[in-house]
Order: sequence, then C-alpha cells, then structure tokens
Amino acid sequence: MIGNMLIAQSGGPSMVINQSLIGAVLTAKTSGKIVEIYGALHGIQGIFDEDFIDLRAEPEEVLLRVAQTPSSALGSVRRKPTPEDCKAIFEILARRNIRYFFYIGGNDSAETANIIAQEAERQGYDMCCFHIPKTIDNDLLCNDHTPGYGSAGRFVACAVRGDDLDNRALGGVKIDVIMGRNAGFLTAAAALAKQDEDDGPHLVYVPERPFTVDRFVADVAQCMETYGRCVVAVSEGIRGPDGKAIAESFSTETDAHGNVQLTSGALGENLAAVIRERLKIKRVRADTFGFIQRCFVGITSETDAAEARQAGEEAVKAATSGEHRSGTITINRQPGEAYQVVYAVAPLVSVAKHTRELPAEYINEAGNNVTDAFVAYARPIVGELPVTARFVQLKGRS
Amino acid sequence: MIGNMLIAQSGGPSMVINQSLIGAVLTAKTSGKIVEIYGALHGIQGIFDEDFIDLRAEPEEVLLRVAQTPSSALGSVRRKPTPEDCKAIFEILARRNIRYFFYIGGNDSAETANIIAQEAERQGYDMCCFHIPKTIDNDLLCNDHTPGYGSAGRFVACAVRGDDLDNRALGGVKIDVIMGRNAGFLTAAAALAKQDEDDGPHLVYVPERPFTVDRFVADVAQCMETYGRCVVAVSEGIRGPDGKAIAESFSTETDAHGNVQLTSGALGENLAAVIRERLKIKRVRADTFGFIQRCFVGITSETDAAEARQAGEEAVKAATSGEHRSGTITINRQPGEAYQVVYAVAPLVSVAKHTRELPAEYINEAGNNVTDAFVAYARPIVGELPVTARFVQLKGRS
Repeated sequence: MIGNMLIAQSGGPSMVINQSLIGAVLTAKTSGKIVEIYGALHGIQGIFDEDFIDLRAEPEEVLLRVAQTPSSALGSVRRKPTPEDCKAIFEILARRNIRYFFYIGGNDSAETANIIAQEAERQGYDMCCFHIPKTIDNDLLCNDHTPGYGSAGRFVACAVRGDDLDNRALGGVKIDVIMGRNAGFLTAAAALAKQDEDDGPHLVYVPERPFTVDRFVADVAQCMETYGRCVVAVSEGIRGPDGKAIAESFSTETDAHGNVQLTSGALGENLAAVIRERLKIKRVRADTFGFIQRCFVGITSETDAAEARQAGEEAVKAATSGEHRSGTITINRQPGEAYQVVYAVAPLVSVAKHTRELPAEYINEAGNNVTDAFVAYARPIVGELPVTARFVQLKGRS
Repeated sequence: MIGNMLIAQSGGPSMVINQSLIGAVLTAKTSGKIVEIYGALHGIQGIFDEDFIDLRAEPEEVLLRVAQTPSSALGSVRRKPTPEDCKAIFEILARRNIRYFFYIGGNDSAETANIIAQEAERQGYDMCCFHIPKTIDNDLLCNDHTPGYGSAGRFVACAVRGDDLDNRALGGVKIDVIMGRNAGFLTAAAALAKQDEDDGPHLVYVPERPFTVDRFVADVAQCMETYGRCVVAVSEGIRGPDGKAIAESFSTETDAHGNVQLTSGALGENLAAVIRERLKIKRVRADTFGFIQRCFVGITSETDAAEARQAGEEAVKAATSGEHRSGTITINRQPGEAYQVVYAVAPLVSVAKHTRELPAEYINEAGNNVTDAFVAYARPIVGELPVTARFVQLKGRS
C-alpha cells in the first residue's frame, strides 16, 4: 500500500522518545511505500488542528541530532481523546490520504491508536495504525521493559549514588522521592546505585506495597542502628493500607486528568519531619527529583537509546511489510545469560488501558527494598554507572 | 622541612573535592619532604578524635578512582571551630609531628586554617597551613571561580536544558529552584542551557537583587505573552527588599549553623501557587534541585575536575617549596581570548570569613536575567553541553 504517513508523540516526554520518532522517520524515508511524512505537533491536538510539519524536509543531520535530544521534539499532549475525537481524527487522516499512522506513547496512546484503527476498519479505509511504546514508568503490559525507562532509571541511579556518597560525608537521614504514581520500577532503579553492602539506598518503598508511617519510622531506626546513617528511596505514589496515596494528604494540585500532582516536595518534607520528630535525628533531608528525571541532558542509557530507535524502526517495518494492519511493538528479553532483546508486534488492545506493576519477585518480603532479581533485571537496561570508589581503609566503616 | 602531613575536607561536598584531595596526596607522595600522609575523617571532628587513615597505604589505582568520585571521600563536617578548638587542634598536630596541614573547603575552612596557622606561629612550631578552595557557590574572594562550581553549574545547565525542552513539549510555566543562599552564581549557570533566542530559562532570579512577588508575576505574564510558555530559574536565597529570604516564610527547618533550610520545596511550590492564582495558568510546575546538584555521578565538568586536581597539587607544591608558611590557592583567568587559568598563593585572611557575590555586570538591568558577559564567563568553566537540537521548521515557533 502506497500513501502518506503521520506520526505524533504523546504523554510525558522521555530522554529517548525522539530516538523512536527518528527511527520511524528514517525507516519510512527508504521504505518505498510512504510518500509524505508528516509530524503532528502536540499529539492528537496537532491532528485536530492539522498542525503538521514535513519530516522529509528536515536535513538528515538535524534528524540525527534530534534523535539524541531529550523530550518530545514534536511537542506532546496530555489529552486522552474520546471515541468521538477519534472519529474526527480519522476523518482528517482519510482526507490527507494517511495510510500509515504512528503514535508514540504509553497505554493511553495505544488505546487512541486502537480506536482510530477500529474506525478505519469500520469505514473500510485502508490504514496501518501502530503504537510505539514509551514510558519512563515502565508500566506497559506485554513488555519486558519500555523505552524511556532505562534512561530515567539511569538518572535516578546516578543521583542516588551521588546522594549516598553525600550522606556518607555528612550523615543523618536522606529521603529521595522518585516519580511513579502506580508502578515502582523507577524508584526501584535507585537500588542500582548500591555497590557495597553498606551503601544506600538502604530502604526502597514502592506503591505496590502498603506503606505505614510507623513501619517507616521503625525501618529508619533499624537502619540508623546498623549503619549510623540512612538513605531512603521512596515512590511519589506510595499508598497506605487503605489504598490512598500518602502524598495526597499533603498536596491538592491536580493535572489535566484530575490526578493529584505528586511531584510537589510535600511528601518528602513530611516524611522528613516525622523522622526528625519521632527519632530525634537532627540532620534529616529530603529531595524530590521531580520533572528533571525524565528529560535531563547527558545521562541517557545507551541501551535504552538504541532500543527506542529500533522500536521506531520496527513499527515502520511492520506497517509497511503488509503483514500487520495494526499493532504495538513489544520488547522482550531472550532467555540466556547474555542480555539480548527481541522485538515483536502485539495487538493494540494487549497494551491499551491497563498497566503493569513491579512483579512481586522484585520486592523483598519486608516490602522495604528490592531483591537481587530486580537488580539483575534492571542493570543491563540502565547500563553500567560511572566509576566511583571509596578508600580501602574505610570499607565497612559507617 | 621534613615532617608528617594531615589533610581534611570540610563543608558541603562537591563533585570534584576528591580531585583536590588526591592531587594533594599524589604530590605529597613524591615531594621528598613529607613522611606520613594522614587523612582526618569528617574534617576537624576527625582531628579532635585523632581519627586518621593512612593515605600512603591506599593503592594508587584506588586513589585515582576516588579522585573521580563525587562527595568528600574523607567525610565532611559542618562544625566551625572556636579559637579554643583551634588551639586543641594545634596541640594534636604538634604531638603528631604534622608539619603540613591542608584543609579543603570554603571560606570557613580558610578561617580555621588561619587560626591554626596563627597558633603555630605563636608557639614557635614550624608548620605549613594551607587552604584548598572548594565551593559550589563560587563565592570565594580573590578567585575568578572555585573548584566545585563548574560541575554543579553543569548539572544545573543540563537539568534546565532538558527541562526547557520538556516545557516546550507540554507548555505552561516551570519554576526551577537552585542552590545558593547568598550568591547567585549557581542559579545563573542555568542560563548556559539556552541556545536559541526563545529557549529558557526566560527568567533568572538571584539573591543579589531584591525580589518582589508583584514584579515576578509581571515578568512571567510578559514572558507568556512573548513565548507562550515560561521557564524560570530562581535561587533558593532570593530576598525581598527588606533583605529577608523569601523562602524563610515557608520553611522553619534549620541547619547546624542555625540557618533556615532553604532546600525544601516550599519556595518553588509557593511561587507556583502565586502564578496559578494570579495569572490563571493551569499548568504551573516547580522543581527544587536540592542536594543532588552537588554530588551527582556522571555530569562532572572536565575543566572543573582538572582545576580541582591542580589546586590540590599546587597547595602541596607551595607548602613544600619553603616559600610559603601558609596560604590559599587562588585560581584566576589569564587575559586574552583563550581560556587559561593561573594558580597563585594568597594569604589565608584574603578568602577567610567574607564571601563574593555575583558581580553587577553579570545581572541585567531589570534584575530578572543574566547578561551575555556572565555566559561568556561561565561557559568554559562548565564546559560545552551535550548536543541537542530542534526541527528546523519549529525554530522560532513558540
């Protein structure tokens, strides 16, 4: 099938979402099936407004530099379209002779692509609709991991490695609040900071296990007794036994979906205040990593970047092969010792709507740290961290 | 003079303070004047406790890896000794036959070294006392810049570059709160993120100029009108016209010196709330970079690392040359186009106690941004940032 292509980006930006975009564009340019290559600005909003740029017109060296650039080069959007919106989008695509539609994003984007694909089918319009996976939360079903996670995880691991060294120098308790409303993958990546047995993070709390302040205080007290200091990685989305986000009691800002903003510093500050008060520890500090963990310049995981690029390429290959009318690209790990992934096409519905949580085998029994299995899982995705070292004579000293 | 050496680290850690430590140790090892090389743990606290490690016993490859490691490998301390403390310290140094004493830190550390030097002089004890400069705040007198600043500045610039790309993708107002209680150098480094005219940071507020909320709101409104979005870099230490820190009204935590903790997220959150309310902008976000900006692993400025190493080397060379009984190493820029620095020895009193502010020529007239002169000043210290790019067709589009 010969026709035009439209591609767009959606949801929270990541350090490697442009790799997927450029992977798709470069593959499309030489596919022999695709005429015009349009990029819609700000996701579906740009489709509604027919606000497109001509990606064939961009010089090759610009494409290659954009690929290395964090954030969404076409702009993004937080809007989740209604089924009516998707019909309107379909009308525009049909009028523009778009035969290849690619949407890069999380599970909501897969859902959008799916509704558009269904509408095309219903109207007998020949079009390939593909979703290209992106989420720093790593919460897509049917995938071992998702492009964007490795680099955000690398930021978290590098920050916590440095922060743990900082805490060794000055002592006390340090609490680092990390993104992740429902899935603990990104917070868990803090564990990659650890080299020696007494390195932090000493405690890791994820939304998958109920969090209680009493238990937290007891954990920190135990850690202080063992190591004389304590570094904590905690997910912004930790929930109490009642299922309510602990942060919600401290924050009232909401985003476009009506979700309470969890990135405010309130969770960390309040947890710090509890420790200060109940354990009478003088130096207790909290940082909330916030938005900079997803688009930081210069800390990208090479594996993540390469996989994001290939996911974009695979989507265009699958679409132009004639074998698939729609689908999402999945990334799964080959069995065996060496890290190796395989890309495949799965139905859009298989990743739409629902999300994946951190598997139980990656969380320790006490629910206050990750397991070695998690570290083995995440290390190749995040990559080796830069070399750091301590004096031999200080090993084992708290 | 032949004798033993003691070295220690003080104050807030930095990404390159271990370069200075290792530079000093490696130079001492081959000086022919220095017998034992002791490292005191946690600054003067380790001297009081005679808690030393033998730095000659550390393998060379460990020293070289420690040099690349952020934070203070010997541990640090926030304690500023009294003159009585300094006398007690002197007694310990004399008993251990310490003839070379090096203290790496900011202006308080220079003051400590100075009092100890005076005590040695008074008692007729032959000893060289040197201060090796370190501060991410870049606020030491008699220096063009100080080791630690370039790397922390690089973190800030990389974070704001990514954050500005993030803000382009999703729009609205983003406020980044950056360290700097009294000096605006680190916040000003955010300006290095900017490549194109419409890039952020669009507004930069430093403690050197009085800050008013009304003026801030007007600046953001103007920026939204011009660019349709706004990225703000603001120093944690911004003060009102009455000289009081704006953050103080939002935070009550104090550090060991009784200073109010400015790193809490309250300043950013409150500024964001003001913009949301008064300008009716829906998407307003704030991040407080916090402690991770000083010890992050993997973002060190190469120039900063090399200069920190050489500052340590120069201190030992100056001390063992026999030409100086005490002093601090200064780093100043050679005149001319090419970036080149010269190291010199200055009296301890010249950097002790007082601090330097961001010069007036580096702040624009409106007091809401830095000048090109600042960017020219800071760029070689921070180093070139990783390549990022935007689509040609989007240049100039907000």
